[in-house]
Amino acid sequence: MASTDKPVPEPEKTVPPPEAPVADPKKDAPPPETKAAEPVPPRNYLVVADVVLRVVLFAAAVTSVVVMVTSNQTKLVTLPVPPFPTVPRPAKFVHSPAFIYFVAALSVAGLYSIVTAAASFLALLKPGFSTKLLAHLVIFDVLILGIVASATGAAGGVAYIGLKGNSHVGWTKVCNVYDKFCRQIAASVAISLVASIVLVLLVILSAYSLSKKIPK
Amino acid sequence: MASTDKPVPEPEKTVPPPEAPVADPKKDAPPPETKAAEPVPPRNYLVVADVVLRVVLFAAAVTSVVVMVTSNQTKLVTLPVPPFPTVPRPAKFVHSPAFIYFVAALSVAGLYSIVTAAASFLALLKPGFSTKLLAHLVIFDVLILGIVASATGAAGGVAYIGLKGNSHVGWTKVCNVYDKFCRQIAASVAISLVASIVLVLLVILSAYSLSKKIPK
Repeated sequence: MASTDKPVPEPEKTVPPPEAPVADPKKDAPPPETKAAEPVPPRNYLVVADVVLRVVLFAAAVTSVVVMVTSNQTKLVTLPVPPFPTVPRPAKFVHSPAFIYFVAALSVAGLYSIVTAAASFLALLKPGFSTKLLAHLVIFDVLILGIVASATGAAGGVAYIGLKGNSHVGWTKVCNVYDKFCRQIAASVAISLVASIVLVLLVILSAYSLSKKIPK
Repeated sequence: MASTDKPVPEPEKTVPPPEAPVADPKKDAPPPETKAAEPVPPRNYLVVADVVLRVVLFAAAVTSVVVMVTSNQTKLVTLPVPPFPTVPRPAKFVHSPAFIYFVAALSVAGLYSIVTAAASFLALLKPGFSTKLLAHLVIFDVLILGIVASATGAAGGVAYIGLKGNSHVGWTKVCNVYDKFCRQIAASVAISLVASIVLVLLVILSAYSLSKKIPK
């Protein structure tokens, strides 16, 4: 994207470079500053979409982690032993390894999205090195997608057991007791599904940008 | 990849097209048949790697599904009710929604890999339309990667509870009873992890192929 410093063999009608020297030939410095926003390079909107998607990914990852981490809930539970005492029993995300993996994976995705959003934004300002950048970002996008998708699946699978239980092996449901905890877990998984979809879109966008740069 | 019918602005030393008419100018029909295997088009090995990876993906997906589906195991379990009868209790993958999703996702990946391996093999035989094919395959590769990775995560998360249990919510481990069932589930998840890695490699290979075709 934004390949303005090499000759692209396409009919470009929107970019008027010959008009600039004709309009004001007496002063040289002002025209590049005032015209800087107007001649949009071809396919620049793809870089803009890339930056926007990475910002959305960051927002989704951070929201997902925060909602998961703040899902603590403590309930008074009656123990099934003879004196039947009522004791406070907390529910935390650290009680399940799947949720710990989920928080780790989404945190990595959030950090990654900051770094790559900055890199993509720099590519928007300085076109030219974006081809190599794109090809490299696809590699890491795909890796992060695999991590985030598997974390979403793991957390979703465990959360489903918490919601429905499993009568075949005697795993009881817990969401009838910990209602707020389960709502936050479900919201967190749903938001990380959004993050997965954003990562899929990022990879598709990168592949589209690369295929658009191939001549013919 | 394998773009021989359009002028690639690169120094190609290995392809000797001017030698073929010079060597035998008197007969026209035999040379194209005998020389067909020798002048390897540039970057043809990328298509070969693509086909090989898709065949590996097919093998991994089918193996994973077969191992998961044949994991049934029936054990005699003593019920904890007063007469304490010993009854046969089966363990099947259909007892867990996560495993059902896993089988569905890996079956889809297996079918997809057959179709795309055939398409990629055709692209190997008929170079020229492979650019558009590649760009489209990346889209579906990424989607299948998301599905397979999330299925691997879901099945792995549930299998981990079966292996270790969860003392916080009272979910007992089941792998001390159903040993063969658990071994097959673990093997199936491990093989699907291989399938996920193969899909990541396929997307990276496609992005590399696309980036190699960009001039400059």
